[in-house]
Parts: sequence; C-alpha cells; structure tokens
Amino acid sequence: MRIYNFSAGPGVLPLPVLEKASKELIEYGSAGMSVMEMSHRSKSYEEIHDSAIELLRELMNVPPNYKVMLLQGGASMQFAQIPMNLNKSGKADFIVTGEWSNRAFKEACKILDAKLAATSEDIKFAQIPELKDIRPDADYLHICTNNTITGTRFTKIPDTGKIPLVADMSSGILSEVFDVSKFGLIYAGAQKNIGPAGVCVVIIREDLLDNENAAKLPVFLQYKAHADANSLYNTPPTYTIYLIKLCLEWLKSQGGVAGIQKTNEAKAKILYDYLDESALFKGIADKDYRSLMNVPFTTGGDAKDKQFVTQAAAAGLANLGGHRLVGGLRASIYNAMPTEGVVALVDFMKKFEGGQ
Amino acid sequence: MRIYNFSAGPGVLPLPVLEKASKELIEYGSAGMSVMEMSHRSKSYEEIHDSAIELLRELMNVPPNYKVMLLQGGASMQFAQIPMNLNKSGKADFIVTGEWSNRAFKEACKILDAKLAATSEDIKFAQIPELKDIRPDADYLHICTNNTITGTRFTKIPDTGKIPLVADMSSGILSEVFDVSKFGLIYAGAQKNIGPAGVCVVIIREDLLDNENAAKLPVFLQYKAHADANSLYNTPPTYTIYLIKLCLEWLKSQGGVAGIQKTNEAKAKILYDYLDESALFKGIADKDYRSLMNVPFTTGGDAKDKQFVTQAAAAGLANLGGHRLVGGLRASIYNAMPTEGVVALVDFMKKFEGGQ
Repeated sequence: MRIYNFSAGPGVLPLPVLEKASKELIEYGSAGMSVMEMSHRSKSYEEIHDSAIELLRELMNVPPNYKVMLLQGGASMQFAQIPMNLNKSGKADFIVTGEWSNRAFKEACKILDAKLAATSEDIKFAQIPELKDIRPDADYLHICTNNTITGTRFTKIPDTGKIPLVADMSSGILSEVFDVSKFGLIYAGAQKNIGPAGVCVVIIREDLLDNENAAKLPVFLQYKAHADANSLYNTPPTYTIYLIKLCLEWLKSQGGVAGIQKTNEAKAKILYDYLDESALFKGIADKDYRSLMNVPFTTGGDAKDKQFVTQAAAAGLANLGGHRLVGGLRASIYNAMPTEGVVALVDFMKKFEGGQ
Repeated sequence: MRIYNFSAGPGVLPLPVLEKASKELIEYGSAGMSVMEMSHRSKSYEEIHDSAIELLRELMNVPPNYKVMLLQGGASMQFAQIPMNLNKSGKADFIVTGEWSNRAFKEACKILDAKLAATSEDIKFAQIPELKDIRPDADYLHICTNNTITGTRFTKIPDTGKIPLVADMSSGILSEVFDVSKFGLIYAGAQKNIGPAGVCVVIIREDLLDNENAAKLPVFLQYKAHADANSLYNTPPTYTIYLIKLCLEWLKSQGGVAGIQKTNEAKAKILYDYLDESALFKGIADKDYRSLMNVPFTTGGDAKDKQFVTQAAAAGLANLGGHRLVGGLRASIYNAMPTEGVVALVDFMKKFEGGQ
C-alpha cells in the first residue's frame, strides 16, 4: 500500500507518472527497447529530450532569449559553476536566508569576491530580509527563493535593476508562477518538483553565456558548451530526463503552474490554519514569508516531536522529521502531494493533540 | 518485441533487470513508495546505496585501501576533476589511443602541464602504442583501457612503477578481470557495463585523496568530500544507483567478472572469426589489440555501409552505424548482449554478403 510521503526531497512523485513509467519500462512504444537503453544520439531519445525542454519552456513561460539546460551534479555543483561562469568583474553579492544560500555563498568565496548583501541569520532565518546593499558593479545577486529547512520563501522577488538576479529555486520551482524575465539565471535540483534526482535544471539569459573568463574553464564546466549542444555535449542522464518529461506532462494536465499554484495555496492553507489554531503545534516561519512547499513546525519539545514522527509513520504518514541540522518537524508538500495527504496529516495531528 | 541493440552506450541492459525494475517501480518492497521517491537519508535508500558500492567492491575485488565513489557528470567531468584533484607536481602524462583519451589530455592541458607519453594517432589508433617515455615526477599517467570508437584495448596494462596509473575504463569495466591494485584511479561512465546513464564510478587509492591543492577546490569538485561522505555529500542520482545495484546483482549471477569474461571472449570470437574470413566485411582494429566490447568494421564503401545499417535495423539489429566521427560500422557487444544477438548479427552479415 502506498503511503503519504512528506520527504523534503527526493520526494513524492505523481502516481500516474509511476504507473506509466512502470508500464513502458521494458519496451518504449515501438522502439524495441527501454528508454534507458537508447543511444542519446538516437532519434527516439532526442524526441524525449527535446520534449522535456520544450515542456519546461512552456510551463514556465521562458522568454526566447533564455536557454534551458539539463545538467548534472545538482544545486551543489551550481554553487561552484555559477561563480565560475558569471565571473566578469570578480564580485558577487548574496542574500543568505538559510543553509543552502549560505553554502552557495561559501563556495563562491573560493572563486571570487563574494559579499553578504543581507541575511536573516540573527533571527534564525525565520524571515526574508530586505535588500538594502548591493554593489553596483556586482556580476550578480544570488538568492534562494524557497528555503527548504526553515520554510520561508521570497513572497516578493527583489528588484536588482541591471544586476542579474540568480536564484536557487530547487524547492520552489514549478510550484508558483515566476516571471522568468526578472532573472538572469534560475537553477533547481530536479528531486523536488521536477522529477527524480540526477538532473539540475539551469535557465540562463543568453547574454550571460558570453564571457571570456568562462571560455578558459574545462569544457564540461562551461555553460556555453552545454547550451550550444542542447544539453547533449556528453551523455545526459537519459532515463531521468524521460521521467522528468512524464512529470511535466502531468503538471500540464493539472492546469500548468498557475493551476497547481491555486491547489498548492489551498493545500498549504489547510495545514497553516491548523498550526495557527493548535494549542500543541506551532509553525516555525514568520507568517509573512511562509513557504507553500515546506512547512516546519514543532510540538515545542524534542521527545514529543520524535514521538509524533514515530506514530505518524505507523499511521502511513512518512518522513515528518525536521532537517538534521535543526530538528523538530517538517511536512514537505510538493506538487505531487495530493490534498488528501495534507487532510490526513491534519486529522492525525488533531488526534495526536487530543491524546495529550 | 525487443530487438538486438548494438548501441555503444547508453546500451543494452539485462532483460531480468528491466523486468524486476518494472515490477517494483511503483512500490519497493514494503516501503510504500517508489525508490525514486525515497529520501537519500532514509534507511531504505541507504541499504540500496551501500549494497551497490559493496557489489562493485566484491565484483572487482577492490582492495581495502581504495574508495569507491558514485559521482555525477560522466567521464567528461572526470577529464577535469582528475587533474584538479591529483595535481601535486603540476605534471601529468598521457597515452592517447583515441578520441576520448585525447579529450582527457586536452582538458588536463587547461589545468596542469600535460604531456603526451605515447600516441597511435599516426596509424589512426589501430594499435596500442608501447609506453617509452614517462616523466619520473609526473603526478600520474593516464590511459583509456578500451577505445569505444576504434575498437582497440590494452591487452597488457603498462607498468608505471611508482607513478599512479589512471584509467578511463568506461567501455571496458566489468567486462574482463582487472587487477585494481595496479591502478591509482579507475573511472567509468555507467552507461555501458554498469547500468543506465547518470553515474560515474570512481575508484581511488586512499593516499591520493590527501592533497593540499585539492582542498582548495569548491567542495563539490573535491574527491575527498565525496569519499568521506560515502557519495552522499549531496543528493545522489538515487534511482540510477538502484538500477546499477540490480545490474551488478545480475552480473554476479553470471559468474561475476571472470564468468562474464569467458562469455565475452567466446561472444567476440564469433564476430571476429567471421570478419577474418569474410570477403566483404573487414575489421578495423589490429588483431593484437581487439576490444571485447566494441567491434568496428566496414564493407569498404560508405554507401554499402549505410545500406547494411538500414537493412539490419529492419531485421531487428539496431544501432550498427559507426561513431559519427569515423563512420563505417560498429557492433557494441556489452555484457548484457546475449550470445544469440551476436549469432543473429553474423547470420545477417552472411546473408547480406551472399546477396552482393
């Protein structure tokens, strides 16, 4: 029996996607082989590859002057690849709103002059700070739009004027509508809202691909090499890209990003409303900056939190422990988490609270 | 109906693996979810992860003083990551025996003083050259044990004394027995004999992990970060690693590497024997250096080669065209290609030859 999986990622995937993948795993259409056995230079694979990229463009309304790349190494690789590729003046500014944007900042420090433009570390990242201080000659400003661990998000995207805005959207991409034209570069590990782990989506404004410094990098680290080759510079993770295509087709059937955003807002409201009225459970993030995807909360006590995780798991509600760095509780409610899963969670929380 | 797939990679996978994967795609055991939905920090996933690494160690008889890592980015990423991580004296020597070892050499040139130790380019890479000239203070010597495009292989591994031998084994790994203790580092893209695309196996002697220069790299590019974290520094391509585990279990059931080597030798002999006696088809590689995995050949004419590819595909023998850089014909006969596939190919070649 399938259970409700609140993992922060890799996380729940749409059941119709898994069913379709299972059915055509051994033989794909009339190809006579599995997708994972196809040459990445074959026509049958290239159709899948191009279709995944085209669906991403369509669902995110990506303007024509942006390239969409499917890379490897996850967001952690981007923490290095971005400063390597965008480094012109040798300066980059960072808003640090949690563990992941802090890692992006620290990796960039090894490559160029990275500077903190704002941080909410003093209030344990419970809010998103205002952007006050940005260097006029910075190559880019980096933010993380949704913070998986502390459950905050940028409810308003900062205006950086002519300075390219670079955003880690790993846990927020495709969950709400973003105006891509406001960004210089968007990146996201696939394993939350895009598909299984093993692909990192990078969307880049074309003018940022022209950079003499980047041309000196090993070819594999150059964005331009991947952009020019349509993400077929070397063998891509073909089967993962096929699964991404299936997930994007499913998202399209849900009314696209605007459609799923409505569902996500209603879904998150069920949980937040209960957290606001509960005498036992408390939400962690400030109300003005609440994530639609990751909801950290606590009973206020370590032992009781652990008890909750164990009892919830026994009731078919899995992976409700908080991130190992902060503890507590967390429900990740990505696009593929059905509303019934959140209703079941709140029902269980009520029962748990009643038993105290 | 499944066809015989002679693709050079991604290539054919064992049918029992595909059948098992299809069956447990939606729900894995009693986990209540697909493997691709599991948190990479969960016990159920870590069992799969550890088991894949343990099987690799067992099948290749990896000595205890070596680490086995499952990385991303393929061999192309290693072309840069190896010189970045092994660079101590700033010198590395290369034997260039084809397109891929040449790419490894060129990428290394961007990072350190890379020098050609030997090459067989003058004879179109039809042989493996003798190693005559190696710098005594080189950080390593790099070879590619099996050349996918020209179909040669190192039938004897060169003795580099105290200088670490680094080997790209992408298309030869697990196809024949190698003495891992003779190498400082072995790497291989998964998509030929290990599993689907999206993972690169790196086996490294532990003493090579200690390097001050490497400690200055972005964390994601440091071997030590991945080795210390058991390839869980960041989210790994979890589902691909699960599929690799299934492929390794299958290989074990075939008598392990020694068992499959016997099968591979017999399988390749069927094709080579026919090439040696045919009046129409000719093998490309010199007889003393023939690959067990990739068999390039030709009818001697471009038009006839193309005709053969088309007619063979219609008869259920797919992907017999040579690499786009050299043309001609090529049959890749990896571990998962059954002997019946090679017999069917030779039968078809005889029929084609008879019709000329």
